[in-house]
Amino acid sequence: MTEGIVSFSDWSKLDLRTGKILKVEDIEGADKLYKLSIDLGKELGKRTLVAGIKKHYTKEQLKNTKCIVFTNLEPRMLKGVESQGMILAAVSQNKNGEETVRIIQPDADADIELGSRIR
Amino acid sequence: MTEGIVSFSDWSKLDLRTGKILKVEDIEGADKLYKLSIDLGKELGKRTLVAGIKKHYTKEQLKNTKCIVFTNLEPRMLKGVESQGMILAAVSQNKNGEETVRIIQPDADADIELGSRIR
Repeated sequence: MTEGIVSFSDWSKLDLRTGKILKVEDIEGADKLYKLSIDLGKELGKRTLVAGIKKHYTKEQLKNTKCIVFTNLEPRMLKGVESQGMILAAVSQNKNGEETVRIIQPDADADIELGSRIR
Repeated sequence: MTEGIVSFSDWSKLDLRTGKILKVEDIEGADKLYKLSIDLGKELGKRTLVAGIKKHYTKEQLKNTKCIVFTNLEPRMLKGVESQGMILAAVSQNKNGEETVRIIQPDADADIELGSRIR
């Protein structure tokens, strides 16, 4: 894979923040998606996101979990729900094409405020 | 703070990957910087990065730690060392202007291949 180079100023346009998953709900007719309510701290407040991680996490695993959210992605409708951002996850594929998907987060002992910018 | 909206295609230009910190070294005359050697898996191999996290982590805390690397950022020279990417960290500031900086990583129990893309 060849990738183009991205300038620091293009990077700076992205608003990536630490968040915490408050609520996890199913979406009717969507077996890969969860509707998530995410706390992004004082400045941004709460957001609704749709994330394709249902095959990889139970609701219990996600609830109260910290995560990283790309907050200024253009909103889009997914199965009738407006997703106001994207939760970041690492995706790997084995030889059989099966995907492993794991969300990324501040490191385990992180005492970091919700809504902190990623830099 | 108002942020512009970023399209999904602009997001897709970024190559963010899981990596593992192999080696942590001081840089002469740089009290905030470490020189890091990072394993980015089979496709990208090893990279040298310069990261401004010395005030926030000991060398021992960083060694063998998983991290997220922005791999196709334009390279830049920092204190005589070429940094071939950027390690992602959450940054928060308290009332006194003191910064807390914590690197972000795949979630604790993640069995994710090095070099996996962040999506």
